[in-house]
Amino acid sequence: MTPRPFALQALPPAAARLCLKVERFCRRDLALPQGASLLLGLSGGADSSALAVILHALAPRLGLQLHALSIDHGLRPESAADAAHAQSLGQSLGLPCRILQADVRGLAAREGRGLEEAARCLRYALLEAERQACRADFIVLGHHAGDLSEDVLLRLLRGAGWPALGGMPARDDARRLLRPLLHTEPAALRALLRHCGLTWREDASNQDARFRRNRLRHAVLPLLRAENPSLDRSLCDLWQLARQDEDYWRQATDAALAAHPWEESADAAGRSLYLPPALLRTLHPAARLRLYLRAVRQLCGRGATAAERRGPAAPAAGHQAQDGDPAEPLAAPGAQARARTLLALDAALTQGRGQTCFQLPGGITAHILKGGVRFSVRTAALPRC
Amino acid sequence: MTPRPFALQALPPAAARLCLKVERFCRRDLALPQGASLLLGLSGGADSSALAVILHALAPRLGLQLHALSIDHGLRPESAADAAHAQSLGQSLGLPCRILQADVRGLAAREGRGLEEAARCLRYALLEAERQACRADFIVLGHHAGDLSEDVLLRLLRGAGWPALGGMPARDDARRLLRPLLHTEPAALRALLRHCGLTWREDASNQDARFRRNRLRHAVLPLLRAENPSLDRSLCDLWQLARQDEDYWRQATDAALAAHPWEESADAAGRSLYLPPALLRTLHPAARLRLYLRAVRQLCGRGATAAERRGPAAPAAGHQAQDGDPAEPLAAPGAQARARTLLALDAALTQGRGQTCFQLPGGITAHILKGGVRFSVRTAALPRC
Repeated sequence: MTPRPFALQALPPAAARLCLKVERFCRRDLALPQGASLLLGLSGGADSSALAVILHALAPRLGLQLHALSIDHGLRPESAADAAHAQSLGQSLGLPCRILQADVRGLAAREGRGLEEAARCLRYALLEAERQACRADFIVLGHHAGDLSEDVLLRLLRGAGWPALGGMPARDDARRLLRPLLHTEPAALRALLRHCGLTWREDASNQDARFRRNRLRHAVLPLLRAENPSLDRSLCDLWQLARQDEDYWRQATDAALAAHPWEESADAAGRSLYLPPALLRTLHPAARLRLYLRAVRQLCGRGATAAERRGPAAPAAGHQAQDGDPAEPLAAPGAQARARTLLALDAALTQGRGQTCFQLPGGITAHILKGGVRFSVRTAALPRC
Repeated sequence: MTPRPFALQALPPAAARLCLKVERFCRRDLALPQGASLLLGLSGGADSSALAVILHALAPRLGLQLHALSIDHGLRPESAADAAHAQSLGQSLGLPCRILQADVRGLAAREGRGLEEAARCLRYALLEAERQACRADFIVLGHHAGDLSEDVLLRLLRGAGWPALGGMPARDDARRLLRPLLHTEPAALRALLRHCGLTWREDASNQDARFRRNRLRHAVLPLLRAENPSLDRSLCDLWQLARQDEDYWRQATDAALAAHPWEESADAAGRSLYLPPALLRTLHPAARLRLYLRAVRQLCGRGATAAERRGPAAPAAGHQAQDGDPAEPLAAPGAQARARTLLALDAALTQGRGQTCFQLPGGITAHILKGGVRFSVRTAALPRC
């Protein structure tokens, strides 16, 4: 019998209410099935620690099978101690938690990537490998409402189009990710840990002003919250509207493709999708833009699955010339739309400018061909994460 | 013959290019017809002064008839001198410019409104009266790309939904407003005035940190522009995407209403619109939300006109309880959507909660009735501006 030191009934009322709020979010927004098996990314920080406690408390009600993985990125002197702290918390909750070393510096050096990007890439790869190893249905992550607000602001800065502007998805079926705390305030998570007498590790790099996310967190968001103390809740509402629109556009592009399918082709060199004029001609520009996004997502290997209707924020595109922007830490590759690229591509279509070639993230190119749009990706360009 | 001290051909190349860029915006984005008659709101500040020079230079090419009005709000000691400066600039451009006094303090005291709101209300009322008096087709205002960025941020803070989040419209047919400089950087406007040897008045209240817009302008936007120097251009792209979506949703709700019209009724006490279940039942939630917005706009007297397809950002709604927020300085009444209200209203519909009453801006209420939604406004609640 698994020990249950933090059973729901034993928690203080505020902590129990928080757990039940997360349960509602899991059922309604994540459509989490009863009896799911979940792999928790456990860093030792407050957010994932609180998620561990909450999922532990909800496990009997939701029939959850829980596993955890702690990744030692080896980038800070205290990273091994953080991972050990995470493992120890997992043990106290009866939650099997492995520690894996990630050779972030090695990957960054080998592939000429930034440390942040390499760390994200390795983290998701290790989590996915562990998910498969322990046959979990989903990876669960501790992103909360504060992270969502930062993400919306980062997307606004990047020039993301709607509905990607609404922020990261709570459920990403293509990457088997769930974010059960996405509408929970971070202060509530720390209060829960204090209620339970649990400690957590602070990641010093969260204070590092070299990272844009930290500059937004510490300099910009406090100013915005001073103007509107319920900013985070407003952005959760915006997020909900974006999810609704995402679902609408999926259905609308489904219908368009049912009438006039796109043409897929693949060989050893790569893959391509051709959107023929018969498909594009009858559509409103707003619908054409969403179709471009869907094509890019499809080529990124993130084609719409049955469950994706609840999922990914949106689609993908980059600058017309060359998209050299640092990838968004919380986004999947090609998961965001730049309004500018989409509008420029559509202008090229309507003006019949066949010579223009658009370089999109993930190594995808688009160009106008015989009155339609051809998206293509070379095989070598695919395995970025 | 009107004197033309700043003919397009006589301007320095950079200034002439700026004028031609504004001309393209007028033709493409505003669909400004050849030979239009325009009333310019001329404050004596840099933005409207530059707009006066640009329209003066473009007048022969666009066949414009130009008039100007300077409003002395009487709120600052220097306001009479500002208005006189504006009139003098108008005279130097051969542009008839009246000065009108606005009794802002009187209106604010009589109706218990804030000074900002009373000033905006009187300003638009006087401009509209003058537009009719000089039989101008449109009022033109000097809002530029910096104002648009502030507006997007203000809307984000207010919890505005998409596509209202894209920012103020460049053409508002319901209020006969045009904003020809909406994609022009303010620095270019000042450079133009300097090129022409013209001076302008600085409005000291633009520095006043008691106004949220000024706090965003001076404290928040510089931080965001440090992260992305082309932020304003990105927000112009977002604006364009929002206009496209606005047009899409107008067509989509047109089609829905053609199949199942709403039911309008009016008597001495007020007006109402009923959206019957047959109309709402078949629609995706995303489409229902846009229909609610359209109903609110209709009751605000801003029903969709033929030309509105290029126009207003969007719609209107407020908090579920009571919308006591200060009105947005650049928005028409009920011109913005709060995601939260729309989502709450739709949840009440789908859950059949007939008792809930939603208070929307402009004195509009919404409630669930016989499986549909009834929006109503009392006659006395209408004339807010």
